Amino acid sequence: MTYCLGMLLHDGLVLIADTRTNAGVDNFSSFKKLHTLIDEPERQIFACTAGSLSMSQSVIGLIQEGLPAGAGGEPAGGLGGGEVTRSLRHATTMFRAAQLVGEAVQMANATVGRALAAINADAWVSILLGGRIGDAPPVLFLVYNAGNFIECTPEVPFLQIGETKYGKPILDRGLTFDTPLHEAVKFGFLSFDSAMRSNLGVARPLDLMAMPRDRTQPILERRIAEDDPYFDDLSARWARYLHQATESIPNPPWMDDPG
Amino acid sequence: MTYCLGMLLHDGLVLIADTRTNAGVDNFSSFKKLHTLIDEPERQIFACTAGSLSMSQSVIGLIQEGLPAGAGGEPAGGLGGGEVTRSLRHATTMFRAAQLVGEAVQMANATVGRALAAINADAWVSILLGGRIGDAPPVLFLVYNAGNFIECTPEVPFLQIGETKYGKPILDRGLTFDTPLHEAVKFGFLSFDSAMRSNLGVARPLDLMAMPRDRTQPILERRIAEDDPYFDDLSARWARYLHQATESIPNPPWMDDPG
Repeated sequence: MTYCLGMLLHDGLVLIADTRTNAGVDNFSSFKKLHTLIDEPERQIFACTAGSLSMSQSVIGLIQEGLPAGAGGEPAGGLGGGEVTRSLRHATTMFRAAQLVGEAVQMANATVGRALAAINADAWVSILLGGRIGDAPPVLFLVYNAGNFIECTPEVPFLQIGETKYGKPILDRGLTFDTPLHEAVKFGFLSFDSAMRSNLGVARPLDLMAMPRDRTQPILERRIAEDDPYFDDLSARWARYLHQATESIPNPPWMDDPG
Repeated sequence: MTYCLGMLLHDGLVLIADTRTNAGVDNFSSFKKLHTLIDEPERQIFACTAGSLSMSQSVIGLIQEGLPAGAGGEPAGGLGGGEVTRSLRHATTMFRAAQLVGEAVQMANATVGRALAAINADAWVSILLGGRIGDAPPVLFLVYNAGNFIECTPEVPFLQIGETKYGKPILDRGLTFDTPLHEAVKFGFLSFDSAMRSNLGVARPLDLMAMPRDRTQPILERRIAEDDPYFDDLSARWARYLHQATESIPNPPWMDDPG
């Protein structure tokens, strides 16, 4: 299993991904699921992947090596020995970037996905794609397994893939488009804390990327280790607060307190 | 959708069920999903149902009318015009009662379920069965769609059916076998509050049944209306506490606070 969360706020973009993968309950491992697709002065694009690991890696590989020049009319660039490809380097907008990633997902389905389907193995991939190109503000997309995608909007300022449900209530209650970036990171960690408690298939280390909308501030990339003291403290405090909150809510007036 | 929760604690048994049903998003309705199967001095048995409404009602109907006498060797009782049936009235233990309910589920699958499968309609049912017989303490079972079942144990003192995930983190964090009955009702309501916020298919009114282990105390049955003031207050307080808790957690030390 996997849990990845993207938050697009007034103050910027946050991506968080866990690193746990498993093939059955007896084969757990750890892989990076937050990928830096391109990091240049004029374009910074990141992706989080959920789904079959071989599908995810195929998609990321296709994007990084460039897709074959198709009928799409995208500008083509030379790569290596004059091979013509299309890549994120030539995408003029994040929308075009999402189209390219969607195409890569379709190509992975047509190759790896078809091979796995032939042996009745279920294979799928979904992707959070976030970043900015040129002077445009940061954008966040969710690319589905069919290659179609949706864009994150201020009304619900987050998108999730993988084990999404356990971590959703805390976001539904507290996160808004106006939540400051450092508060959003706290909300994100609390969301992961819930997901990790209720599903062993989600686990630290976590990878974090925070891109302030203000271009004078640097992009933050950080790994939250299994014994990260800040995360441990956040988790312990949260448990205490929840306990206090539950205790301080009055008892049902129509129920006897035997105590 | 549906959400039903059963909690088996040192102090007793609690069942909570919502009442929302829907056939597609354009056809919402309200049906009772917490059923009193039998309420006599020596046996009090309740069930919550999730799944296709026609399947659920078939199962409850079969249980209440009695199952045909089979090869099972259960004591048979007369019903109406001398027809021989087996019913919860004759179950000597809650384990036998769970077997009977499992059989009813299998019969509903063989009739209603088969008819629906013929038109490619997905049909299933799952049931929380809780109660007590004779001098035995309260017991809680989850009966699956195949008619098999599991029993709730003190290690994880709750079982859920339907839309289970959104409401699970709060229970995982706070509920233990030693949680007092009125505290458990609060935890249950907070679990429903989370599920209702994140899924429109779960909604008030809620039905509650609380059976104290102490037999000198009465069984509580109560409907929590859509405008129930206690639930409204609990929900508002919880939102406030979560907000305060999030704010009081320190910011990540490696992140600038622009404020």
